[in-house]
Order: sequence, then C-alpha cells, then structure tokens
Amino acid sequence: MSLSPHHDGSALYVPEQEPALGQTVPVFVRVPEGTDVRQVHVRTTGDGEPRFVEATVDRRDGPDVWWRADVEVRNPVSNYRFMLTGTTGYRWLNAAGPVDHDVPDHGDFKLVSHAPPPAWARDALIYQIFPDRFARSAAADGRTPPDWAIPCDWDTPVIGHGPETPRQFYGGDLDGITERLDHLDRLGVNTVYLTPIFPARSNHRYDAAGFDTVDPLLGGDAALVRLADAVRARGWRLLGDITSNHTGDAHEWFTRALADVDAPERELYYFDVATGDGEPTYESWNGVRSLPKLNWGSAELRRRFATAPDSLLRRWLRPPYGLDGWRVDVANMTGRRGADAYTHEVARLLRAVVAQTRADGLLLAEHGHDHTGDLDSDGWHGTMNYVGFTDPVWSWLRRENSAPGDAAGQRPGAGGWPDGDAPVPNFLGTPGGVRRRDAHAVLATMNSFRSLISWRSYTHSWQLLGSHDSARIRTVVGDAARQEVAAGLLATMPGTPVVFAGDELGLTGGNGEGSRTPMPWHRPQSWDVGTFATYRALLALRRDTPALRHGGLRWVHADADTLVFLREAADGTVLVLARRAAGPPVRLTGLPATGSAGSGPAGENVYGGAPALRPAADGGTTLPGDGPTFQVWRL
Amino acid sequence: MSLSPHHDGSALYVPEQEPALGQTVPVFVRVPEGTDVRQVHVRTTGDGEPRFVEATVDRRDGPDVWWRADVEVRNPVSNYRFMLTGTTGYRWLNAAGPVDHDVPDHGDFKLVSHAPPPAWARDALIYQIFPDRFARSAAADGRTPPDWAIPCDWDTPVIGHGPETPRQFYGGDLDGITERLDHLDRLGVNTVYLTPIFPARSNHRYDAAGFDTVDPLLGGDAALVRLADAVRARGWRLLGDITSNHTGDAHEWFTRALADVDAPERELYYFDVATGDGEPTYESWNGVRSLPKLNWGSAELRRRFATAPDSLLRRWLRPPYGLDGWRVDVANMTGRRGADAYTHEVARLLRAVVAQTRADGLLLAEHGHDHTGDLDSDGWHGTMNYVGFTDPVWSWLRRENSAPGDAAGQRPGAGGWPDGDAPVPNFLGTPGGVRRRDAHAVLATMNSFRSLISWRSYTHSWQLLGSHDSARIRTVVGDAARQEVAAGLLATMPGTPVVFAGDELGLTGGNGEGSRTPMPWHRPQSWDVGTFATYRALLALRRDTPALRHGGLRWVHADADTLVFLREAADGTVLVLARRAAGPPVRLTGLPATGSAGSGPAGENVYGGAPALRPAADGGTTLPGDGPTFQVWRL
Repeated sequence: MSLSPHHDGSALYVPEQEPALGQTVPVFVRVPEGTDVRQVHVRTTGDGEPRFVEATVDRRDGPDVWWRADVEVRNPVSNYRFMLTGTTGYRWLNAAGPVDHDVPDHGDFKLVSHAPPPAWARDALIYQIFPDRFARSAAADGRTPPDWAIPCDWDTPVIGHGPETPRQFYGGDLDGITERLDHLDRLGVNTVYLTPIFPARSNHRYDAAGFDTVDPLLGGDAALVRLADAVRARGWRLLGDITSNHTGDAHEWFTRALADVDAPERELYYFDVATGDGEPTYESWNGVRSLPKLNWGSAELRRRFATAPDSLLRRWLRPPYGLDGWRVDVANMTGRRGADAYTHEVARLLRAVVAQTRADGLLLAEHGHDHTGDLDSDGWHGTMNYVGFTDPVWSWLRRENSAPGDAAGQRPGAGGWPDGDAPVPNFLGTPGGVRRRDAHAVLATMNSFRSLISWRSYTHSWQLLGSHDSARIRTVVGDAARQEVAAGLLATMPGTPVVFAGDELGLTGGNGEGSRTPMPWHRPQSWDVGTFATYRALLALRRDTPALRHGGLRWVHADADTLVFLREAADGTVLVLARRAAGPPVRLTGLPATGSAGSGPAGENVYGGAPALRPAADGGTTLPGDGPTFQVWRL
Repeated sequence: MSLSPHHDGSALYVPEQEPALGQTVPVFVRVPEGTDVRQVHVRTTGDGEPRFVEATVDRRDGPDVWWRADVEVRNPVSNYRFMLTGTTGYRWLNAAGPVDHDVPDHGDFKLVSHAPPPAWARDALIYQIFPDRFARSAAADGRTPPDWAIPCDWDTPVIGHGPETPRQFYGGDLDGITERLDHLDRLGVNTVYLTPIFPARSNHRYDAAGFDTVDPLLGGDAALVRLADAVRARGWRLLGDITSNHTGDAHEWFTRALADVDAPERELYYFDVATGDGEPTYESWNGVRSLPKLNWGSAELRRRFATAPDSLLRRWLRPPYGLDGWRVDVANMTGRRGADAYTHEVARLLRAVVAQTRADGLLLAEHGHDHTGDLDSDGWHGTMNYVGFTDPVWSWLRRENSAPGDAAGQRPGAGGWPDGDAPVPNFLGTPGGVRRRDAHAVLATMNSFRSLISWRSYTHSWQLLGSHDSARIRTVVGDAARQEVAAGLLATMPGTPVVFAGDELGLTGGNGEGSRTPMPWHRPQSWDVGTFATYRALLALRRDTPALRHGGLRWVHADADTLVFLREAADGTVLVLARRAAGPPVRLTGLPATGSAGSGPAGENVYGGAPALRPAADGGTTLPGDGPTFQVWRL
C-alpha cells in the first residue's frame, strides 16, 4: 500500500483558514513520488465558469512534492479541484480522492468565505446529557410528578417502545448535573450539551409547552443559572437544544391557534391538512399530533422565535443563563413542507440572530440523513454527522449476527430473535437495521459524504457513536474491545467528538428511546471502568495532540477489517490503525518522514500499546496484525 | 455479461410522466433473475425526512420480476432510490446504477412536479445554424459590409484564433437559410436553431448592439418572418439565441450607462470593478471588454429583458416572428457574480415570461460544465449536455494521437504539432484537450452526470457532438467510420439530438471559432455523401422508433472499445452496439424477451447491416466483434 496525491481543507493544505470574499489564496497538493504526476492544474468555477490555472512546484519534502496553486474566492462558496496529469493521461483529485473519470463539481473542495464557527468549537469535546436520566439532586424528591408522568425509580427498566415510553419519568434535574460535573472532568470533556429543558408533556421535552422558562421539574430558571455558572467556572461551554420544526400541542402558541382561527398564533402553524372525513386538521411532525409543525412562512413566527429583542433564541444566550449556542432539533425538516422551502432562510436567520446576541454562539443542526446543501452557507455551523460517521462506523464494527434471517432482512419467528441477535436499528431508518460492511464500503461512504461539504463544515460537524435517538454503541458492537475501536475513531477523526452520557460506562440500549438509560451512579460495581479509562485516555490524546484536533485526514489503507489513516498538521503527524479483527499485518511504504515537530520520539506509540514504528531498511513499515485493536503512533 | 436491476425515469418505470405536487405515483423496478434480490424498499426524503416503504411484486415477465412501490410527490422535486436486499446484505439502486455502499441523495431518482417542457421538444431533431456561415441569398451581394468587418469570400479559410476571428464576415443571411430548407428536410431534422440574429459588431453576434431588430445584414425583420413562415409551413420549429449574461458594448443600454452615471441604464451593468490604476471599470464576460455583464439585481433589467409587455424576450416569440423558444447563452454565468446569486431567480423569471407569452415555448440553457442545481426547478427546460454526452463521447472516440508529448500534456516544439496530432481542445477547457478514455470511464462519467438531474431534464437536454463553440466531431474522431459511431450515439441515446450544420457533410474544424465553416454548397464534390447518408438514416431511425425517442436507458455492457445498451419502451425495445475498434465479440445473457410490440421481426437488425440476433440454445446472444461499427437491433 502506498500513498496517493493528497489535498484536504486543513491548514497544511489551505493555510488561509478564513478566506474573505474576493481574496486569492494558495492551496497545496502533496504528491508522493511514484504516483506519475507531471503537471498539476487547479480547476475553479467562479461565477459559474470553469477555469484552469497551472500549479507550480512549491517545495520538495522527503518523498513528496508539494505543488501550489492560487484560487480566487470569487463566490461565497468557491469550489476547486485538481487535475493531475501524468504519462498516461490525467486524473482528478477532489474531496473524495483521486478519480479516473470526469466528475461533477459536487465533490470539489470548497473555500467558504462566510464567517467561521466560533473558535472554541474547534476544540470542543462534548458530553450529551438527557436531563431526565442523568442525575437527581436532593430537591428532585420533593417535586410532584406531573399528570402525564409514570414515576419511575432510578432502577426501573427503560421501555424502548410503547405508549409508556415518553411518560416514564425518572426525575433527573439540572442540579443533579451540576453536582456531577467532576465526572465529566475526569472523563475529559469541555462542553455540556443538554437535550431540551423547557416544560413539556414528555420525558424528552421535544414537545415544548413553552420557551419562556426552564421546566420546574428540572429546577427552573435558577437551576439553569447554577449549572451555567458551574460550567463556566470550569472554563467549559454549555449548549441548549431548540425545536425549530414544531412545538408541543400544549404550547400556548398552539392552544391559542387551535382555539381561535383569528388568533395571531394561527399563522405559526399549518391548519390546512385534509383528513379522511373532510375536516381540516394541522400538520405535525411525522403525523404525531402532539407535535404541530411550525410554519416558517409566518413573519410572526420569525419574530417570536428569532428576531424580537426578547425572542426565545436570544433570551437563553444572554446572562444569567448564557448558553453558548443551540443544537437545532429536526433541522432537516425545519421550513420544509410541500412547496414551502424556507430551510435555508431559517438557518441564515437563526445564525444571524445568534451572532448578534453573542458573537461566539454555536448553531448546530440535527440532520438525520444527507445534509448536503444545508451546510456551507451562512446558516448552520455544522450537523450531527450520522451519515458520514456514525452509520459507517456502526456498519463496520457491529457485532456479528448469528440469526440466519438477519442478513436476508427477514423477520424473527414467533419466538423472537435469538438473544442478542436482533437487528441493530440505525438512526437513518434503513430497513433491516445496520448491516455489517467491510472497511472498503465504510471508507467509500465516509469519503462520499465528506466530499460534499467543506472541510470547515465537516470538521465542525458532530461526530458521535450514538445519541438519545439511537442504539448505544456498546449494544451495536457487542463488546468492550470493539467499543474501544469505535471510541478511537471518535477521538481521532476530524469532527467534534460527542459522548452520549453513559457510553463511557459501557451502558447498553437497543434503540433511541431504550438508550435513555439512567446513569448508574449508585452502582459503581456495574461501571465498565475499563471503558471509562479508554474514553478518558482517548479524549486526553485528542486534547494533547494538535494533529488530532486540527490536522488533515489522509487515508492510507483499507481492507475488510482494517482502516489506516494519517492526521497531519504542521506541528506533528500521527498514524492511526483501527482493526475490527486480527488479520495479515499491513505493510506501508512512502509514509511521510518521521521526526516532524512535536513532542516525543518519531515512531512512538501514543495509544494502544503497540511497539514503536521501525521502518525497515527499504523504508517500508509494517503495522501489527492483531485485533480488534486501536493504535496511534506519532510520526 | 448479464443485466442488473434497473429503474429510470422513462414511462416503463414511471408511468405518470407529469406528476402533480401531492400526488402519489407508482414506480417500478425491473429485477432480472439471478441478481439476488429478495426484498425491495423505496426510500424518500419528503419534507426532509427519510422514509422507507416496502415494494411488492407487481408481475413477472420472462426472466424479470417487476417490483412496484408508491412514491409521494411531497415536494416540487421529490427524490427516491431503491434498497435491494438479498442474501448477503443490501445494495442501493439510484440513478447512477446499483452501488454497494451507502450514498448521498444527489444520485437519487427525481420526480418533478413543475410544468413539463413543451411536448414537441420531446421529439425535436435540431439543426444548429450559425447564420454568417450557412448560406447567402442573392440579396447579400447588395449589402455593404460593416465597418468592423473583414469581408470574406465563401472559400476564405476560417481563422480559428486571432484578432481577425470575430471580424471575418462571410455574409450568410436568413433568406439564405430559407432557400436551403430542403437540405434540412433531406437530412431529416424538424427544428432550426439560429445563433444570434441581432445587430452586433462581430460575425457571431453574441455582442448584441440591440434586441429590437433583426440585423439588417441578415435581411432584417422581414427576412426572419419569411424564414419563420417557411419553417412553420414544414411543420417545424424555430429557436432563437438570447444573451442573458451580457450585451455588446455597442448596445444602447450600455452606451447610455457608460456616458451618464445617472442614466437609468446604469444599474443594468456592474460599474464597480477596480482596475490597476484605481479607476473603476465595469464587469465583463471573462474580462472581454466588449461584453459588459448584465446585473440581474436590477429590477429595470428584469423589466426590459423579460417582464415588460414589449420585452425582448416576449417580442420575438410573438407573431409575425413566432420563435418557438430560446437557447440562453452563458446561462451558467447569468446572474452569478461574487456574492450575487440570481441565476435561479432569472431562470424562473424567464421561464414564466416565456410560458405566459406562448405556452409551448422552450427555454434551454447553455451550460458548459456541471449543470446540477440549475435544472429541475421551474426554470430552464434543459441544458446543452456537453459534460454528460459530448465530452465523454469525444474522449472515447477521439482519434489516436501519435505525438508523444500529447499524452503527457506537453506542448509542441517550435515546429508545432505533427499534422493532425494537435491536442483536440474540448469545450470544457480542460488543459491538454480531450484525452482518450476507455468506455468504462465514459460510462462512469455519463452515469455520474445523468444521475444528478431528473430523467425529464436529462431527456430534454441537448445532445450534441459539437457546436459553434467546439471542434467539429469529424476532426475529433478523425474519420468517417468513427463519426458514424458518434452520430449513432447522438441518434440513439436519450436527449435531444442537435446537428451542427455541416457535420453531416463531414466538415472539419479544430476549435470553436475554426469550426464556423461555411457550408460548401457550391462544391458538392467536397461533400462526404456517405456521412450525409449516415446522419439521414440514423435520424430516420430515431424518428421511426418510439423506443429511441421515449424509451428508458439500460446499460448492458462496457469494455474499453465497446458500449452496449437497451432503449426500452412499452411499444418496443432496441439493442444498441457501439464499438470504436474491433475486439472480442460480446456475449450477453438475460436479455429481455424478444418479440415485444412493434413492427418487424424480433432480433431484426435495423441499422448497421449486421445479421439478426439469434439467441443460442442456452439463451445467450453474441454480438459481432468487428469495429468501428454501430449496430441497432429490434428486440
């Protein structure tokens, strides 16, 4: 296996990380020797017209030639790709990698001149908390469960599917979180993301009954102030979760709209849906009547939600709460309905309002499938990258399944699935759940999705192994060894790592609702302390290794059971080996020179315990063949 | 070689060809036996949310199983793809074909609920005329050449590059065209497309000096009326060419704008470009000062160009001229400039105005590269498909090149290129010109671009082997035999065939300007009558074969020198074999049953002279291995 010509949007290849409209910036291509490249052009399509500019050799660096070309940031998003000409013709190099046939522009590299995300987000390590299930403060015992709730003990099993699912009430609260921040500190995260905290009629609170107060069941506004202060005191950040697609049907906007066709709130929703009996009803999220859909064609909605001086969006970003930004629920559907296509307007509007309210505010979109086209503008800073990270990692690392029907997409018989052999449902809804794939397919999937968005959007998107909407990683992969490989990818690939609270203790859960597992604070003997140590070590490695936070991504090798890649930065390069199973050792040639800047000796293993890398006399390097394993070396 | 599961947007697979917003329509997948498909789902993303619906077996037809699923046209453009589950996992089937890894939505099939293009366009066979070079009427001799012109005899060699290029004036006129319509009739076309006919200061007239009259050098308004009447009398259609990106600098809009900063015309252009000496100047097409760029942010421009009752766009669509539509020049740049992104607004506006003015008007965009995103809305009906047809066909069929430097992208020495060995410049501007590619790469390119747009936009886009902006096909491929293969693809693939006047006589030309070859009416001995007969026969075949006009497209085989595909329709199926060189015969299995509806015996060769197809005892069929060749059989 040898290396291919490479470019990505990282600083090594694009020194100007915040290009301005109209600026011309240099971009670099790294061409290993032996890859038959005699000439390099960069192709742009500024103002809609293709143009080619010849690149020049900038420098030689060991076995690599660095070519340089200049690209004009002619439009707010300016795409470019490289044409590599050799003795036998030309190849393109776009964000999906080298390709031998002519290609459309969608996979081009992209320079984005819109204002960048806040600087802190680049180094964020996020911990996601579902408040009802994280921790109860002493005050929780004194609260009366609401009428909709089925009160549960902390040990009551979570019901993953059924009418009780949204009603199981465990009573976690914000002060409970505040009291447990030492756990987060030990883990090594620096950003807390809370799923919704507004009053609602469910444990998940995505059915907001109002946006003006924090749910008293969580401790109310004062508890949020206490949590925010405690988070800030540690130098961390705190993110909220806002539902822009719908409210709950108990929201006063909706109850007024429903009660009176002349109410000013009427236009905030869609009351034009025909039912079987001819009576019009209202549009709701996936037909769930308790979640009426918001109509972003309404100027009044835009005002109340965003632009008004006291809008909900602004209010919680300001002191004394001072949220550092919002995760936007169901951003993929927000503003989309039939011929209505307000999504990009809404994203731009919310971004502008966030930026006005606090310049370092983050706005991150939930998007459960292909997010192309919804990023890279002046809207969402990033997305939850289920399609380009979670799903491919799951499909590579998921446990083997002995149920013969599973691979064929058949259903279990009356006796149900053999224990542990039920399909793993993926968040993307694919029938048959997560199927096992080889690393080639995983890599093709990752490359394909990554190539459609800018490096900036990619690296600022959230990288997660699961969430409150999916199965837990431990259940997907089946054991601690493969969870370590998954967590390794989480901590070493580009993108903002997000840990769903409890994953670090090896908690399990078979689907989204079933994964809302209460944290077993009172049962330390149940914690998987090895997994906690793994997460802690991996997050520390990321924190301490600039290349893992800001470096480029260069794939080196993929076979069925193995993925190898480099993270490259001016201040150091690391080599990452992920194996889901043992197999033949991988032999690499043409690795960049070792001994680049950075601490520690060249070739040193910095995670996983393998021996240091020792190039053979011919320059080749052999990586160990045992597995599952996750190893990182400093070059 | 056997067949894969297949779907495309043709009527066999999508019976409802004009779906309405909100409608639910059936779509069908054809699954050949032996392709390991046990279950089929359709995936949609209506309102931004992925949904899966299981398909059911609709019927069996010989070796094929037809699955049916229902798709809601939830949004104006509703995408869908299929998930094919077998014993070893699942594959996706999107518009690029079956794929083994997870994919973004850009290659999904698309249902478009916007109003369809005019019905006549579906069967159009277009003949492109560059008026200065087509034919002179007797009246032409009496006209005084304009001041900018270098008067030329009809036999003066065309200068392909230099200051004289736009000034060579041959004096062809509209009555010259009217007098030669019998030639078009013999060829078998039914639509005449004229490059610009407005007054200008060049032979190409893309630098309009006005839009209110036909250039007197072409015979003026009355000559256009005579031509339009003659075209209509034959039951044909006539298309004009409009420059929406720029005018000429002699246009009165521009001269007024330049003379007076307070002129109402000032806002029609961009006067904000900084020059080296600090003096502001104006934006122009690719920096060519004689082509000042229009600013579509101007309401006044929108009025004059489109919405005013007497706008230029409307005027020529009405009697007595009655153009049937417009080809829109430089549509790819129109409305794009820095942060200005009016392109889609302009397309929508022009489309609405054309439709108001005549319901059956066509609006076709020039687009010299990836047109994704600019089609499928309620704007352009189609594009000039250089990227998805011309360029791949060229790269497959181009002549071999003996110049050793060519493949390496090197330049010729002081002695220039060996005769005929100069690189073939492609319209897309790729350095080194058109490189020779194998059919695999050609197919990958075609599939990749086709998959990004709807079947409707694909089939209504113009399929061309060259134009006034490119080298001529004869020069690209080098001989009549390969030109026949190219013309065969032109006549048998989906898309509207466009013949650039003179290609049918085997005229040559090495680049766009050099290809503006005068028609050698007076030298019939120079005509390649064999090539004319080829074009005539191929266009007749398309006219007489419904499957070639409306059928689906199913690729059957590709090797370096061979492409084989089916065009399938309810009223007949044809099999097409294109070879650029001789090679091993291709053996096919699993072809659909012969003897489908349609005239002629099953297996009959209907173009190319090969024997009828005779399946062997085991059902396999062998196609001949000689080449270059182009063959069509009716199944």
